[in-house]
Amino acid sequence: MESKQLVYEGKAKKLYKTDDADLLLVQYKNDLTAFNGQKKATEHGKGALNNQISSLIFNVLQTKGIPNHWVKQLSEDKQLVKHTNIIPIEVVVRNVSAGSLAKRLGLSEGDLLSQPIVEFYYKDDELGDPLINEDHIRLLDLVESSVLLNMKELAHQVNLVLIDYFKQCDLRLVDFKLEFGFDSNGELMLSDEISPDTCRLWDIHTNQKLDKDVFRQGIGSVDEAYNVVLERLKGAVSHG
Amino acid sequence: MESKQLVYEGKAKKLYKTDDADLLLVQYKNDLTAFNGQKKATEHGKGALNNQISSLIFNVLQTKGIPNHWVKQLSEDKQLVKHTNIIPIEVVVRNVSAGSLAKRLGLSEGDLLSQPIVEFYYKDDELGDPLINEDHIRLLDLVESSVLLNMKELAHQVNLVLIDYFKQCDLRLVDFKLEFGFDSNGELMLSDEISPDTCRLWDIHTNQKLDKDVFRQGIGSVDEAYNVVLERLKGAVSHG
Repeated sequence: MESKQLVYEGKAKKLYKTDDADLLLVQYKNDLTAFNGQKKATEHGKGALNNQISSLIFNVLQTKGIPNHWVKQLSEDKQLVKHTNIIPIEVVVRNVSAGSLAKRLGLSEGDLLSQPIVEFYYKDDELGDPLINEDHIRLLDLVESSVLLNMKELAHQVNLVLIDYFKQCDLRLVDFKLEFGFDSNGELMLSDEISPDTCRLWDIHTNQKLDKDVFRQGIGSVDEAYNVVLERLKGAVSHG
Repeated sequence: MESKQLVYEGKAKKLYKTDDADLLLVQYKNDLTAFNGQKKATEHGKGALNNQISSLIFNVLQTKGIPNHWVKQLSEDKQLVKHTNIIPIEVVVRNVSAGSLAKRLGLSEGDLLSQPIVEFYYKDDELGDPLINEDHIRLLDLVESSVLLNMKELAHQVNLVLIDYFKQCDLRLVDFKLEFGFDSNGELMLSDEISPDTCRLWDIHTNQKLDKDVFRQGIGSVDEAYNVVLERLKGAVSHG
């Protein structure tokens, strides 16, 4: 599978065409950004770690019946995915208070939420990815209400699978961001990535942060933290 | 009805006990605040204008069957209301793009929305009254989901009544904020005020702003703008 024409370059990934119009090659980049692009860095090996982590996770989700775009891992930093038209909504699921939720509602970081909560953000860098509600989504015509309901239901399902999977790895799934898209048949499926760039993952015993907050907050080595996640996920898969 | 013990003083009103435990006397203040209290002023006569405007509006809403706390106007700047326990959610209804909606979604001010939208804000000055969704409301246990549904339905009903009422006054109802509470029988009802402090009202022909944006943006006389609104509402009532 030779990489061809660049279709799209985002903050963390490059997407290339393949010989098959329905498939894209994804190359995971070493770039890290935070605070809507205000903080930037390059971390050697980060792309390879996230590609491997996201591949393991999407594979697990497929075995659990969650439709998603992942096809296979091609190399350390490349994977093959179905071509999807991304819906410009970031779906965030939260189990524990942290980040913008703690700030918005005046909660302490680390408070266990009585039940998972789902938030929608409008995927628009210029606007700073603002929180939106279902009326805003209807107004902007971002997606049909019935599809939004499916996205929310799938997000809860993903959460249940991942809470369990990470627990086997002694990791607490604090929160995570999902993106969805439609494939060429119009089927709704999970897209994008699931990695320490898009999740908050804490060691279940020590609450050590093993995700992009290490970069955001400058509290250690991104490479070491993401490596811990990858090694634990690999261990869970081989013993699972 | 003599005013007695001060129960609560907000940014725009003072609430006093009366001889009847179920009734409160509300005195409308001349204070204006904006941008979460960062801009402040006192405008002589503003309290009297808002008390009269809100009294006219709540009276119209009662005749249309919208349950609310208003009992009667007592004087230029005072009214009698049922004592309600306020739910700490600001319900905002929008018909035209303006203010924080335009900023949040990157819309132009003045765009007519294809359908009215409803937003919930957490009534908390320290947090800056953040936008919240229904999951946040459940998490914070601000109100039961069934009551929230009623609040949303009532907000839409209020909108229909007020669009029509203001139209008779050559005013465009751009957006407005509502608060709800429970009376001593546990009945949900509209509370607080509806005035140019809590609505955006534009002249239907010229789009001249006749609301608190005059103060926020420093574009004219608050007293004159609010007076236009009061005189037009009085005219509509006498001819209605």
